Amino acid sequence: MLMVVCDGVSDRPVKQFDSKTPLQAARKPAMDAIARNGISGIMDVIAPGVVPGSDTAHLALFGYNPYEVYTGRGPIEAAGASIPLRKGDVAFRCNFATSGDGAHVTDRRAGRISCGTADLARALSGMKIEDVEVIFKEGSEHRAVLVLRGPGLDHRVSEVDPHSEGEILQSKALSPSAEKTARLLNEFVRMSHETLSDHKVNKDREKQGLPMADIVLPRGAGSVGEIEPMPDRYGLKCAGVAGVTLVKGLCRIVGMDVIDVPGATGGLDTDYMAKAEAALRCLETHDLVFLNVKAPDIAGHDGDFRLKVRVIESVDMMLGRVLKDLHEEVVIALTADHSTPISVKDHSADPVPVTVSGADSRVDSVRKYDEISAAAGALGRIRGTDLLPIMMGMANRSAKFGA
Amino acid sequence: MLMVVCDGVSDRPVKQFDSKTPLQAARKPAMDAIARNGISGIMDVIAPGVVPGSDTAHLALFGYNPYEVYTGRGPIEAAGASIPLRKGDVAFRCNFATSGDGAHVTDRRAGRISCGTADLARALSGMKIEDVEVIFKEGSEHRAVLVLRGPGLDHRVSEVDPHSEGEILQSKALSPSAEKTARLLNEFVRMSHETLSDHKVNKDREKQGLPMADIVLPRGAGSVGEIEPMPDRYGLKCAGVAGVTLVKGLCRIVGMDVIDVPGATGGLDTDYMAKAEAALRCLETHDLVFLNVKAPDIAGHDGDFRLKVRVIESVDMMLGRVLKDLHEEVVIALTADHSTPISVKDHSADPVPVTVSGADSRVDSVRKYDEISAAAGALGRIRGTDLLPIMMGMANRSAKFGA
Repeated sequence: MLMVVCDGVSDRPVKQFDSKTPLQAARKPAMDAIARNGISGIMDVIAPGVVPGSDTAHLALFGYNPYEVYTGRGPIEAAGASIPLRKGDVAFRCNFATSGDGAHVTDRRAGRISCGTADLARALSGMKIEDVEVIFKEGSEHRAVLVLRGPGLDHRVSEVDPHSEGEILQSKALSPSAEKTARLLNEFVRMSHETLSDHKVNKDREKQGLPMADIVLPRGAGSVGEIEPMPDRYGLKCAGVAGVTLVKGLCRIVGMDVIDVPGATGGLDTDYMAKAEAALRCLETHDLVFLNVKAPDIAGHDGDFRLKVRVIESVDMMLGRVLKDLHEEVVIALTADHSTPISVKDHSADPVPVTVSGADSRVDSVRKYDEISAAAGALGRIRGTDLLPIMMGMANRSAKFGA
Repeated sequence: MLMVVCDGVSDRPVKQFDSKTPLQAARKPAMDAIARNGISGIMDVIAPGVVPGSDTAHLALFGYNPYEVYTGRGPIEAAGASIPLRKGDVAFRCNFATSGDGAHVTDRRAGRISCGTADLARALSGMKIEDVEVIFKEGSEHRAVLVLRGPGLDHRVSEVDPHSEGEILQSKALSPSAEKTARLLNEFVRMSHETLSDHKVNKDREKQGLPMADIVLPRGAGSVGEIEPMPDRYGLKCAGVAGVTLVKGLCRIVGMDVIDVPGATGGLDTDYMAKAEAALRCLETHDLVFLNVKAPDIAGHDGDFRLKVRVIESVDMMLGRVLKDLHEEVVIALTADHSTPISVKDHSADPVPVTVSGADSRVDSVRKYDEISAAAGALGRIRGTDLLPIMMGMANRSAKFGA
């Protein structure tokens, strides 16, 4: 089985472009071939009218109810940064930011600091606050991950990050059992300012007239839920091919083998052919291969119709490469994790087109992969959590319930 | 209301036969007339991607959530064998098998023993093990039913039947409260061997060189859940017309009047016209008549495309007979309990086509009853538990919720 997710490819018609969606405007012979040979439909990735995040959407596509397993973005970022989480840990995504006085933030991204963050992170990681250990790791640019590890933690705390310039907030417990976590979080922010203000990296930045990365603002608190790994849950050996860190983290959390593909950047410059070939190779050793391409989402966030069309055509060439060597027994699903309409420049709740084909799959009259054509297909309107079970059913990998 | 279930009729396209499904290949004017006069759709009998058993599927079609009411096949077989179950009973379906040493099984069906099983069953039924009564009844060929009746029983026990030749397993409790049941089950198997080895029927079989039916292997443990009978639940007088024992058992369990139709065998040789006439007669005295035809499923399990087409055409003639005398006020639904594709030779998770028509029902553009045509219909994609409520709504038999 091969699940291809074109991140954010789903869209709305755009008046200036003949009232077409980017999928309708693009030349995409491979995508249309998949639609022509299988059954299509539309999919509410979470539920009708719910705008999916990339994280919750992927959890749903992997068959998990995000309302049950998702507590916050932190643990997914931690997994993406290869920090193995334990039960009871609370994880946060963080920004290095510029404060000055330790009470206000003047630049939430510390001038998009691009070097020295590893040194700054080392100065924070390993600290103890009360009986709790601080694990801290830098990410790309101003991004980082914080994990608090110790007894009696609870992720239900309010944010310290004001999400704009201004006063840094005091975290409060949103549940009585989170009092300790809120206290430690506030203390961590205070200590990060104390430690980073005098750090050599910041002294150098000051000399160069750059904003100091003198405070850390954690957000997106979450703890690891009871996620049964996909191999146990479905009896499937699973591999994930993705460029972007968040999606890689999600793949790790659900127990996929995450394949590192040189040149797969998660950006517009990704090496599409390398991803195609990695996916084909994985199919030889795995039952389910998941392939994510991030670029359509980036074009959607940019609100750039022509760019999105070009990206779709590049993704289509990647799919053409996949189809050329795909065993006819493989059940392939082509879909998106959410819509990122040109007109919205952000995720939207519009359902996404989905098409599934395989050896002896039913074939409907849909001949094109796009938002409107797919809606007339024999798959009807499904939910994100239905997709993997449907693929397994078509691949004869489902168990009978009853006799 | 008349619900017609063509068991396993739903299929996948078959390459060697012009990539058609058997329903697409068959001439079936009556089925197509129902589709033409009503609204069609596809139906996940349990849920998307779930392969339904015949038992769980029918429970869903009768409006019950099988995840809530289904514990195992045993109680349904017991009901089929007309053993009235009480709350607390644990029932098993059983095979007479050949063992020799009492620890291994050499033929799970005792050479498909066809006579003498009533005598063998009488030797076992009525035994007491500790404070628990053994009720045992033969079925067709090597099949039988075991009911344990007494205090402190629980169906959550592991299997003794190895499901292939080899060592007979020791049943273990899967829940602390099932320790007693597991112990009694193991003791029953031991006693069945002790009792049957010396039985006259087996002495005769030995002389004739036939495999002895010298042990009983129970499986599919289940207890009667809290199934509210359909007459109470829906306020409907219900009748079931079915040939096959399992489906008859299900009808009894949900409180239908089970109609014995001479010549309705549940096989390929069933008397279709007798079933048609029985269904029409029942409609004069009952609010809901359920009519099951097993033959399409048999052809599917055999993987015989031409046979399945012929069977469909026979079922269609039966439906033609029904339609000839059907009062125009009757809401009729035509569907399947699951797919049994020719290419799979077993049940699959593919959704089944469903069409519903009645006096003033909406009419969509679907003109044929098959898997692909139905998917384009106005009924959309529904669940098995939705069908009966939809029929009741169309028949103006539903109560208002609210004011």
